[in-house]
Amino acid sequence: MKLVSFEINTALGQARRIGVPIDGDETGRIADLTGCYAAYLASETDEPTPRQIAAVRCPPDMIGWLKGAHKSRAAAEEAAGWISEKLITAKDPTGIRGERLVFPRDEVKLLAPVPRPGALRDFSIFQTHMSNADVPFKKTKHWYVTPPYYKGNCDTITGPEEPVPFPYYTERLDLELELGIIVGKKGTNLTIDEAKDHIAGYTILIDPSCRDGYKREPFGPNKRKDFCTPMGPCLVTSDSIDERNIACRIEVDGETWWEGNTGEPRSFWAEHLVAYVSDNETVFPGDIIGTGTIGLGCSMDIHKWPQVGQNMTFTMQGIGSMTLAIVKGDERVRHVDGMSGLLEYPGEDI
Amino acid sequence: MKLVSFEINTALGQARRIGVPIDGDETGRIADLTGCYAAYLASETDEPTPRQIAAVRCPPDMIGWLKGAHKSRAAAEEAAGWISEKLITAKDPTGIRGERLVFPRDEVKLLAPVPRPGALRDFSIFQTHMSNADVPFKKTKHWYVTPPYYKGNCDTITGPEEPVPFPYYTERLDLELELGIIVGKKGTNLTIDEAKDHIAGYTILIDPSCRDGYKREPFGPNKRKDFCTPMGPCLVTSDSIDERNIACRIEVDGETWWEGNTGEPRSFWAEHLVAYVSDNETVFPGDIIGTGTIGLGCSMDIHKWPQVGQNMTFTMQGIGSMTLAIVKGDERVRHVDGMSGLLEYPGEDI
Repeated sequence: MKLVSFEINTALGQARRIGVPIDGDETGRIADLTGCYAAYLASETDEPTPRQIAAVRCPPDMIGWLKGAHKSRAAAEEAAGWISEKLITAKDPTGIRGERLVFPRDEVKLLAPVPRPGALRDFSIFQTHMSNADVPFKKTKHWYVTPPYYKGNCDTITGPEEPVPFPYYTERLDLELELGIIVGKKGTNLTIDEAKDHIAGYTILIDPSCRDGYKREPFGPNKRKDFCTPMGPCLVTSDSIDERNIACRIEVDGETWWEGNTGEPRSFWAEHLVAYVSDNETVFPGDIIGTGTIGLGCSMDIHKWPQVGQNMTFTMQGIGSMTLAIVKGDERVRHVDGMSGLLEYPGEDI
Repeated sequence: MKLVSFEINTALGQARRIGVPIDGDETGRIADLTGCYAAYLASETDEPTPRQIAAVRCPPDMIGWLKGAHKSRAAAEEAAGWISEKLITAKDPTGIRGERLVFPRDEVKLLAPVPRPGALRDFSIFQTHMSNADVPFKKTKHWYVTPPYYKGNCDTITGPEEPVPFPYYTERLDLELELGIIVGKKGTNLTIDEAKDHIAGYTILIDPSCRDGYKREPFGPNKRKDFCTPMGPCLVTSDSIDERNIACRIEVDGETWWEGNTGEPRSFWAEHLVAYVSDNETVFPGDIIGTGTIGLGCSMDIHKWPQVGQNMTFTMQGIGSMTLAIVKGDERVRHVDGMSGLLEYPGEDI
């Protein structure tokens, strides 16, 4: 099953909802999940309070829906089945309060499946990643048993219809193609086997990285990555896709830059990463865990670099496709160029 | 002004609230802010809906209160002034629905001032920090103009009454004493001068760090720090304290391990850090920004190491004091020791 988060303009302002891409992928119509489930309950069951139950089982936000686990999943399946059936005879079906239940694609704006997760961690588990770079990232013995990751910025996650800013403080912007694991269920100190049950699904995760400024950031990437993390176009539930075999492609203005597969040599499966994060920590519904660049799917390895004005298309078979425009970033302040501080550099590192 | 977040047991279960330490510091009574403001409005003004206004101006969560900015601050001052006056004659005053307004210290549990911030960033701006370590952290020319930081785990923040786990995967646990800056107002691309107005206040921030396992984590600290970040005991508003001159002390089981001051040589003031974070990012109410260890205030520099069973007391003049017990961490899983992965280490780093 696929789900999307989307924004819709109404007479009462913008609203954020979750929905089902009813024509099979993100290019088709979007059915409003909360409305459809309420309408299904009202017309097909003896439920006395359909709107209230729909608000609990299929709330209009993805994290709320994920919290409902198997119950919310079953409700979503019922709602999706019901509206598909309905669409055979009704062109523009409405819900129990007259609300529209299905939106043409061009009337909605798709958001990241989880627009604002509680945590974003991004690993590096593919063996060939950075192997073709000018300065390769060499995999140590630690890399094979304890997967390295950084923590990202949850407040700059963007959706498939937002541009990617090219920050003033980089000359080399690299959009890494990754698989995003979406946590479904809260868990602490999980075994690898237990962790499987805590994965709700997958999405495309793009990790825009500045390939300079490393010396500025000795404690992990900050300004190099935190300005933007696109995700989308949908969440594909883990039972609907094999994360070990997803064909991937990067195209720039129509030209193919790279093709690969999530089955390329990697140190761990998704459940290892979830289990590892949960060790002495807790994973929560909606938390995002990236795999790191799949194979050679980034500029460091393919030696082609995106520029302002270009459009990059990222495709993963079974998930969908996103085309992201590269635009000039904001320069109102330029602190990353260096701020005038309180101490003078003494001329040598001490 | 000082504010705290606290938990109280009621006949309807635990509730989280914010309050004012009405006797001046965290050792005395705590006045419930929402209840006091509603009672003040009902008894001293012509407000027709005191509970509703109190829920907006002084909601029971710190981030909600911070969002109200100067309006919520004025309301809190009125509530605190009113209850102080009231306590001269009433021993256990009650609110408009019979709720208790003031709690003896031992009836509440203090939480981190912001129990679950949206973001946690921790800098390293003090010049002598790690200068006395076995392997010093040398400050480069970049350090003087672009302050380095790491991003922490917002889901393992603990309060002044919670123990600190000693993880199974470290032999050297170091509790770094830091000043925590609490963001008050949303802002993007702020100048350094503008950033001043985005600081709501300060708290004590303890950064428990494992001083081993560095090679496991090449992209910044994860398991080394993410298991716990204590904060407290209160938020002191920025107009009530001079962050450039706060006396600090670390004691362990009654013995003083270190004394220092936030005025020790540092690269930047608080507003620089807020402005820097906001460059191509957004800061939000409740976001936490740590200064990094103040002076030599950590085990790496003083060469004394906390052990399970010890109690560490951290004091900052004008903020308060927290005593944290060191306890054995959880060992249900031991993934950080190394997981059996999908690839074999080929015997050399490639």
